[in-house]
Amino acid sequence: MAGCLSMLLYDVGNTNIKCYENGKITNVEDFDNNSIFYYINVNPKMRDFKNGIDLEPYFKLKTSYVGLGVDRKAVCCAVDDGVIVDAGSAITVDVMSEGFHKGGFILPGILAYKESFAKISTTLIFDVDENIDIKKLPKNSDEALNFAIFNSIYLMIKDVSKDKKLYFTGGDGKMLSKNFEGSVYKKDLVFTGMKRVIKEMGC
Amino acid sequence: MAGCLSMLLYDVGNTNIKCYENGKITNVEDFDNNSIFYYINVNPKMRDFKNGIDLEPYFKLKTSYVGLGVDRKAVCCAVDDGVIVDAGSAITVDVMSEGFHKGGFILPGILAYKESFAKISTTLIFDVDENIDIKKLPKNSDEALNFAIFNSIYLMIKDVSKDKKLYFTGGDGKMLSKNFEGSVYKKDLVFTGMKRVIKEMGC
Repeated sequence: MAGCLSMLLYDVGNTNIKCYENGKITNVEDFDNNSIFYYINVNPKMRDFKNGIDLEPYFKLKTSYVGLGVDRKAVCCAVDDGVIVDAGSAITVDVMSEGFHKGGFILPGILAYKESFAKISTTLIFDVDENIDIKKLPKNSDEALNFAIFNSIYLMIKDVSKDKKLYFTGGDGKMLSKNFEGSVYKKDLVFTGMKRVIKEMGC
Repeated sequence: MAGCLSMLLYDVGNTNIKCYENGKITNVEDFDNNSIFYYINVNPKMRDFKNGIDLEPYFKLKTSYVGLGVDRKAVCCAVDDGVIVDAGSAITVDVMSEGFHKGGFILPGILAYKESFAKISTTLIFDVDENIDIKKLPKNSDEALNFAIFNSIYLMIKDVSKDKKLYFTGGDGKMLSKNFEGSVYKKDLVFTGMKRVIKEMGC
């Protein structure tokens, strides 16, 4: 299969398309239709990719979860044991144990939280501050909103991770990982999962 | 002051106007402009109330929080010691200790969470299920979203409340209070605070 050699990969999210080629990840507007490529896609508005090989049918993740998004399958396929946090337009949190997917949940992404507050009232418009102290009760509206976002995410991840290794990925993954000692940030986790599946396909 | 006797109270929120008269609370579309009334208002789109007495300047809550909304001041004035959760279009959580407001935070309301997910992707449209088991890792998308909402709220409230008494109010207050043993739901908490302030005004 020609595509096996070129290893041009695309991850189509709800807001971005990420391209992986020769170990480099870039945000792109469109596909390189001159090459054969592999892709995963969670955006229902985008469905027709000429030259592209959809990897979705090839993921064989062991799970009892029904309807797991292919982006979550991909990051889970990259980790045998641990908790994977993919922080993009939504924040997905998935638990892997000995190669088995135990379940997971979906929080709004940081921008989605911010927009959600702005929609409730113009008095809830604020600047995101990743350095908010989540151990101190807020003393003004900006702190109150940042505290709610970052402490919600922190407590939810702590609640499921316990002593498990934490893997962060996605646009806000690096920022969030700072709050978790011993965690790692892997920018290319989704592509690691995709490459693993391509290898299993015999490429 | 004539208004002291009639005790017609209005609580103007971001989505609803609540009226309190003779111990009864009703949702109303507009004010009864034939009577003198007291009100609080957090909706910046509504500012001119004929015959109404704005209680905002009369709240003397002890706090170092800057810019606390008058609805939060009102519920805090009703409780000397405890944590107050007002669950409406936003969920405000405030900590009172010996008559002093120690701080608080603001989460999206349950509907705001739901709408926030729907805006991220059409695949994240779901029905809110208040009976979701927040002790069990989700196994499908509906569970994943409900778990995220209700466990976020639960963990955030637990994190600040510790051994303090919990008071719930607001449209979703009764539903949320069920997860907290020993908590109370007080539908009229905001009006209790307003009445307390009116009494202090000498009425």
